[in-house]
Amino acid sequence: MHVHVDFCLIPLGGELSVAAEVAECQRVLRAAGLEPQLHAYGTNVEGDWDQVMAAIKECHRRVHAMGRMRISSTLRIGTRSDRHQTLADKVERVERLLAGS
Amino acid sequence: MHVHVDFCLIPLGGELSVAAEVAECQRVLRAAGLEPQLHAYGTNVEGDWDQVMAAIKECHRRVHAMGRMRISSTLRIGTRSDRHQTLADKVERVERLLAGS
Amino acid sequence: MHVHVDFCLIPLGGELSVAAEVAECQRVLRAAGLEPQLHAYGTNVEGDWDQVMAAIKECHRRVHAMGRMRISSTLRIGTRSDRHQTLADKVERVERLLAGS
Amino acid sequence: MHVHVDFCLIPLGGELSVAAEVAECQRVLRAAGLEPQLHAYGTNVEGDWDQVMAAIKECHRRVHAMGRMRISSTLRIGTRSDRHQTLADKVERVERLLAGS
Repeated sequence: MHVHVDFCLIPLGGELSVAAEVAECQRVLRAAGLEPQLHAYGTNVEGDWDQVMAAIKECHRRVHAMGRMRISSTLRIGTRSDRHQTLADKVERVERLLAGS
Repeated sequence: MHVHVDFCLIPLGGELSVAAEVAECQRVLRAAGLEPQLHAYGTNVEGDWDQVMAAIKECHRRVHAMGRMRISSTLRIGTRSDRHQTLADKVERVERLLAGS
Repeated sequence: MHVHVDFCLIPLGGELSVAAEVAECQRVLRAAGLEPQLHAYGTNVEGDWDQVMAAIKECHRRVHAMGRMRISSTLRIGTRSDRHQTLADKVERVERLLAGS
Repeated sequence: MHVHVDFCLIPLGGELSVAAEVAECQRVLRAAGLEPQLHAYGTNVEGDWDQVMAAIKECHRRVHAMGRMRISSTLRIGTRSDRHQTLADKVERVERLLAGS
């Protein structure tokens, strides 16, 4: 099952800054063979469900290993059974509509 | 890794009502040995990461099998490395604070 | 516009526990005339869009006033133009389906 | 209060495609004086709390006016009381960490 995920990991407690943890997650996602697209409030990834979810679990494991004892993530998860669609397709389609308006 | 998940599955297209699909997800989660707590905008479950995530994947699979071709879910995922905490613990702690105030 | 909101406020940094802040938000929502329904990973409220959103803004303001310098909330927001539906309606409808199955 | 919002609006029922509705929201956000940053699973905006939230309410109103009778949006909302931070700051900080690693 192909999946689109928008993933935002938030460590609680300790330092206010979360940039080091977000950077570590980018490394984890890349090491899993994914192409994470960082945006200002999360990261988009796409791929096989099991591959993507295993990488997200590894992000939790690694951020705990950095000393962060509590994590709350939010995910948006999209799947389709009618046709294949990439993350890029979704953005392009909206941009074409805006350009034509 | 013990996980708390708040899961809200939304089928796109077709019927406006999503109650049948939400009910089906409750059945899937129970069949996976979980104890889903339905609330008005999602369902809370807790358990081993792999068990919970496999059940959520099965929810997507089953809702697609019901003829829904596009699904967008949102998850809040909580993990802790400092101590074990149940879903009930979280609610009780806030209610005790409210009762004492 | 009538709105259903599932609201989860997370203060970043400092103490790991967020129970005091969640309790304070319950007080803010009640003081705004709402009937918050606390669950294990958030709080459901319903009402007029402006009333609900003003109360959520006040939650951010009050949690900052408690000394929490950074907050990240997640909201699910539901609106319908076809008919009125309460938070309780949504849960009852799914429970009836489960009872009948 | 300055706010960062990641906003994802999903119309339920009817057509599977939501591109027209997402495009309309971009127009609404721009018309409100905001600079929406579309990504593959939502849109980031920043600005004054009241201005941003009024624009999001207008998105719901406009998508209902397009004939979509049910909408479920998800928002991530970030506020800070310690210092001003832009959406661009957040991405740059992570990218610097990744470049230096």
